[in-house]
Amino acid sequence: MDILTVGSVAFDSIKTPFAERKRIVGGSATYFSLSASYFAPVKVVSVVGEDFKKEHEAVLGGRSIDLAGVAHRPGKTFHWACEYHYDMNERTTLATELGVFADFKPEIPAHYRETEVVFLANIDPELQLQVLDSVKHPALVGCDTMNFWIEGKREALGRVLERVDMLLINEGEVRQLASEVNIMRAAAKVLKMGPKWLIIKRGEYGVLVFGEGSFFALPAFPIEDVNDPTGAGDSFAGGFFGYLASKKQFDEWALRQAAVVGSAMASFCVESFGPDALLRIAQKDVRERAQSFKKLTDFDGNI
Amino acid sequence: MDILTVGSVAFDSIKTPFAERKRIVGGSATYFSLSASYFAPVKVVSVVGEDFKKEHEAVLGGRSIDLAGVAHRPGKTFHWACEYHYDMNERTTLATELGVFADFKPEIPAHYRETEVVFLANIDPELQLQVLDSVKHPALVGCDTMNFWIEGKREALGRVLERVDMLLINEGEVRQLASEVNIMRAAAKVLKMGPKWLIIKRGEYGVLVFGEGSFFALPAFPIEDVNDPTGAGDSFAGGFFGYLASKKQFDEWALRQAAVVGSAMASFCVESFGPDALLRIAQKDVRERAQSFKKLTDFDGNI
Repeated sequence: MDILTVGSVAFDSIKTPFAERKRIVGGSATYFSLSASYFAPVKVVSVVGEDFKKEHEAVLGGRSIDLAGVAHRPGKTFHWACEYHYDMNERTTLATELGVFADFKPEIPAHYRETEVVFLANIDPELQLQVLDSVKHPALVGCDTMNFWIEGKREALGRVLERVDMLLINEGEVRQLASEVNIMRAAAKVLKMGPKWLIIKRGEYGVLVFGEGSFFALPAFPIEDVNDPTGAGDSFAGGFFGYLASKKQFDEWALRQAAVVGSAMASFCVESFGPDALLRIAQKDVRERAQSFKKLTDFDGNI
Repeated sequence: MDILTVGSVAFDSIKTPFAERKRIVGGSATYFSLSASYFAPVKVVSVVGEDFKKEHEAVLGGRSIDLAGVAHRPGKTFHWACEYHYDMNERTTLATELGVFADFKPEIPAHYRETEVVFLANIDPELQLQVLDSVKHPALVGCDTMNFWIEGKREALGRVLERVDMLLINEGEVRQLASEVNIMRAAAKVLKMGPKWLIIKRGEYGVLVFGEGSFFALPAFPIEDVNDPTGAGDSFAGGFFGYLASKKQFDEWALRQAAVVGSAMASFCVESFGPDALLRIAQKDVRERAQSFKKLTDFDGNI
């Protein structure tokens, strides 16, 4: 199955205690697409400015990533700058220059409309709805969101949630969305808002997958050298939906494997700077990491 | 195998948003012993005051818990008071009245000296060393510690670490002990200080077990109704060492199962108030929870 994703293609300026790089190609759609393209063809909907040249587009080239839905508009490409501190879990955003993204109106090419799997990355829920309206009968729809939309666009977000199969958000956002501290109770409340599945990203603590009468907990793959956490969540989503699209199955056991694949992709992502690792690894690396994952979490439950 | 433990027997006054109870029997040795006694006989070394009556001792009675090493001294029993907030991960200590615990000098009964498994709960490392000196050839020694000793008794703690097989501490303490934020690198540094195994408690995020060339990650058992987190860490340690003592095996796979048992005991502990659940559950409950644990973490690693 093919995947359609809508999200940002951006320039990221990233500083860590160990390295600094300016205006490298990033954004949620970039990380998602690079990660998902290991498993299934991806069609991207986004917008870039005049400063986004052939050499930038080439980062996404040579793979099954369709860029027909990436509009080129007068103005500057979305630019985001951040600095990570010694504890890589903490970062300071230095700049958020929306550029052409401020007036982003998703334009869906005709050949995108039959796509079977849709992932709505973290953008304005009104735009997520527009994209969803333009796709005929998708077999699987997932979305991400953030505190900004939970606070400011609650009603539109509610309409998105009624129409998605899977919501992927981080732990703090689940608590905020449900107004409930206990993560089990918060998850139950979010499932009542529409999605059949809730995938909770916990960063270095792994991931939880909730469905009706179904629960799966997976620790994160341990990484000794975290070089740049940027894009980890979108790499997870790319691996998760990419794997589901390739399996064409969306049951509980497929989701468990998808969570392992997503975690593997996120672990590769953070080991390198920017999307470097996603451009370099082979499918064999992903398979090996999934097997390592099994080894490091396995135990005999018959005590 | 039998287990010797040294730690506090105390009165706890606990307030949560849902309930409040004053001067119930608690302390690290209480939670550890109740939890471990499901699997192996326990010998306790501690001290209580004149206010610790027969009815309080009865909380630990009717089980394989030997209280010959619990000294009765003139004065008051250690009293600790705390209040948990709506987010049960946060608490405020309201009182720490050491009482007779301030001058605690462990006294080891003669019949304790051949005990095969020793667990040194979180007390002054000087006292941990005294207890260790009084036990002949134990097969397995574990210890806990805290930020207070890492800061204030670093040298003595270093001597303890050189003599223990296993260190059980929480995530923040590992980082503090190793002066290293990355948990993988911090663990490697701590293993160089002496222990063959490092067991990292992460609360609602589960547990990590590190050994040379060995790594195991286990999420926490999800609990919808956390009623009182008091004693969770000591209940974990009790289940962990109790299970190892009953198996008489200390290899990687035994440790993985021990971590599951410890996590199960901790999950029972936090579901009830004080040590109530540890007084009520049956071994069958622990076995069932271990199997549930397997179900909720299982996946096929061959993607």
